[in-house]
Amino acid sequence: MKTVLNITSKSKDITQWYTDVCLKAELMDYATTKGFIVYRPDGYSLWEEIQNYLNKRFKELGVRNVYLPTLIPMSLLNKEKEHVKGFAPECAIVTKGGNKVLQEEMVIRPTSETLFCDHFKDILHSYNELPILYNQWCSVVRWEKTTRPFLRGSEFLWQEGHTLHLDENEARAFALSILRIYEDLGRELLAIPFVSGQKTESEKFAGAVSTYTIEALMPDGQALQCGTTHYLGTGFPEAYGIKYTSKDNIICYPHYTSWGVSTRLLGALIMVHGDDNGLVLPPKIAPIQVVIIPVRSETNPEILKTCKKVADELSKKDIRVKIDDSNKSPGWKFSQYEMKGIPLRIEIGPKDLEKNSCMITKRYSEEKTFLPLDNIADSILKTLNDIQEGMYQKANDFLLNHIYECHNKEEVDDILKGHKGFAKVVSNETAEEENYMKEKYSATPRVIPFNQRLFQENDSLDDKKGEKVIYYARAY
Amino acid sequence: MKTVLNITSKSKDITQWYTDVCLKAELMDYATTKGFIVYRPDGYSLWEEIQNYLNKRFKELGVRNVYLPTLIPMSLLNKEKEHVKGFAPECAIVTKGGNKVLQEEMVIRPTSETLFCDHFKDILHSYNELPILYNQWCSVVRWEKTTRPFLRGSEFLWQEGHTLHLDENEARAFALSILRIYEDLGRELLAIPFVSGQKTESEKFAGAVSTYTIEALMPDGQALQCGTTHYLGTGFPEAYGIKYTSKDNIICYPHYTSWGVSTRLLGALIMVHGDDNGLVLPPKIAPIQVVIIPVRSETNPEILKTCKKVADELSKKDIRVKIDDSNKSPGWKFSQYEMKGIPLRIEIGPKDLEKNSCMITKRYSEEKTFLPLDNIADSILKTLNDIQEGMYQKANDFLLNHIYECHNKEEVDDILKGHKGFAKVVSNETAEEENYMKEKYSATPRVIPFNQRLFQENDSLDDKKGEKVIYYARAY
Repeated sequence: MKTVLNITSKSKDITQWYTDVCLKAELMDYATTKGFIVYRPDGYSLWEEIQNYLNKRFKELGVRNVYLPTLIPMSLLNKEKEHVKGFAPECAIVTKGGNKVLQEEMVIRPTSETLFCDHFKDILHSYNELPILYNQWCSVVRWEKTTRPFLRGSEFLWQEGHTLHLDENEARAFALSILRIYEDLGRELLAIPFVSGQKTESEKFAGAVSTYTIEALMPDGQALQCGTTHYLGTGFPEAYGIKYTSKDNIICYPHYTSWGVSTRLLGALIMVHGDDNGLVLPPKIAPIQVVIIPVRSETNPEILKTCKKVADELSKKDIRVKIDDSNKSPGWKFSQYEMKGIPLRIEIGPKDLEKNSCMITKRYSEEKTFLPLDNIADSILKTLNDIQEGMYQKANDFLLNHIYECHNKEEVDDILKGHKGFAKVVSNETAEEENYMKEKYSATPRVIPFNQRLFQENDSLDDKKGEKVIYYARAY
Repeated sequence: MKTVLNITSKSKDITQWYTDVCLKAELMDYATTKGFIVYRPDGYSLWEEIQNYLNKRFKELGVRNVYLPTLIPMSLLNKEKEHVKGFAPECAIVTKGGNKVLQEEMVIRPTSETLFCDHFKDILHSYNELPILYNQWCSVVRWEKTTRPFLRGSEFLWQEGHTLHLDENEARAFALSILRIYEDLGRELLAIPFVSGQKTESEKFAGAVSTYTIEALMPDGQALQCGTTHYLGTGFPEAYGIKYTSKDNIICYPHYTSWGVSTRLLGALIMVHGDDNGLVLPPKIAPIQVVIIPVRSETNPEILKTCKKVADELSKKDIRVKIDDSNKSPGWKFSQYEMKGIPLRIEIGPKDLEKNSCMITKRYSEEKTFLPLDNIADSILKTLNDIQEGMYQKANDFLLNHIYECHNKEEVDDILKGHKGFAKVVSNETAEEENYMKEKYSATPRVIPFNQRLFQENDSLDDKKGEKVIYYARAY
């Protein structure tokens, strides 16, 4: 049946498999601009679904969209020392404009804290204007040496939220409420489970007091940071002169949060669900949820008519459906739509017509069932919900089965050397520990999970009393 | 009543008035990055409504969204000679990335024909893959010496469509169908009428065979180009090597179109409808369509209750409504929401309660009426439709009254020296004529309208037999 498309096996070489799926499912293409990609229609539409989901959720919290400049004057970027130190090495720099050398060099935004702060200082005056809740959809540029489609590129698409609050409690609570929205996005749209928690001091955002994170686990046992929210304290407001007059007429600095997810989520989606036949999409995010394939319709015109009737009924229930009645062979079509990741296939042939039924095949489990054509739309709606739920459960089982409590160095060695998943350790969050993990396993502390049940008293890596649970892994 | 906000009068100084409205209606703010602006929530939401409208319309034609890189390698830009000549002088150039001087300089996209063509050459193989219909939402950078909010800036937001077709007829028809969508956008969403037609040879897009345009007329008699669609022939495909195999197995070049509208439309919206009290928004695009202001509600709690009931009823009919029950004075509120351009104001006070009615004020005409509270949502829906229609008619009357048939040089002089509007001339489209108009009046040929009724035999500017009707005007 694999007449059209051959891809590398996922278990044999996941790196090559990943590239094959990205290209052959027509999600992206490489651009001539080195390190940059073209987001093709089937890839970009996944991002649009993420945008729709998040815009709705953000709006419910009162967040409003804005747009700030692509370019940051160097002097503006330099105002917050920790921040610029973090980003300067990856900046793309504009030195000429309109046929002239610029008096001041400009940076293509790698992130927009500096621009938001520069704007906030002009618009904030009084306590009753707080909170200010802004979000921006845009692309950012960070010069990368090695790139991989969606996962790491010199340009990516993202949303970046920037908010100001009266006090630390409100700001932290807001950063956490956004993190919960990101978790919901994973569960409800992408069918991806995350470990959520806080970043260690070493891994937090340049300029943040605390960074919260959602981390997914890829099939090769490597972690993928999928979104972060930051409580930035008052450091940026102090550096950029953002002040307001309080109820008691005192000049105060607001408390700042920023947060974002990016097209990297598409990388997670491909990695977590895809298989040797290509992409596998959860129904909620799939641009086409159901493909109907007429079988031997050239011998019986009733078949195509029935296909169209079914498609009509599905459309009426807002199911995104497509009929492929081209003259390609059913085998070609099967593998084509498997490659594209369409969640559900319906086949209707002469025998189905006799029995007033059709055969459905779930993409993610390859499970085949016969369904009666009566009330087909309701049956399919239910099936799509089952698929969404089933895909999440499958991914969640994988995640939970690959978090390993490590009681000592030997167990850490077993997990991280074997690339098995998250090594869960009891830790003191020391530089020594992090260096040891980095040098020995190229592993980094991914997350201090919110769930902090200490599973033993002592530190997993030495004999001191342990303080907290940390998950280590290699990461994309 | 103007206790809060003072702006310059529109008739006295339209330039200062325009800037005042942009800033005080909180549509934008100036950024530290010179020539760049911040799109504030109330400005950006107008752009989001335009996006929603166009995405829906484009989708009906089968257009799909994609995203291509922000940066263009210089060598790629240089492949189409006419095109690069047109854009090179306004380019922002990246010369350093990741702390290194780049081997090849890169340009921040001023438009993306070169990138699309570079991608098209990789994905097009056969006639049955045509047409390819793509659109991109993004920002572009064009270095400008003098800038004005929304109308001309070093960065603006836009959509750029890029399509490939089998032949010239299909490509031209497609470019024209998009132009019709832009006209619909004007009428249905923005309440702005346009003159539509073709650009002269001198004014067409760099690299195009034909450019089609929609031109609006501003209150100061200057034209504003609001959107263009281009038939680009096979020039780009030839330069970039985009080929396909035809049904008859012949290698062919596809026919190319590109097209776009930008945030410049927000400038048109402000200019065309605004008045001395600030912004005036057509209901279809207004983020808030109706503001309800309780009057003397401190003396009677029933008033606020009634306001909330009315708001509820409006919301149920999908009317975007807001109650302002803050303790600011009604006068402050009136001028605040006038400045913000809210299309309709409802006041409810003690006397209204007695009569079971409310007073409504249309923003654009300042017309006041009493409406019964029974079936209020239906009455308001109808009123909002009337406002949308009324605003379009008012703007259309203004446009039609400011197109002047000029039979000779004296009449041209009267119109263009007086900044009265479009000088409609019978013309031979010569360089002499264009130079004369440019030097004497700083006027350019704006459009060769589709409606080509020659209103006299000879050219309006000399004694030769005239060929076509052209509209001249000064332009933003």
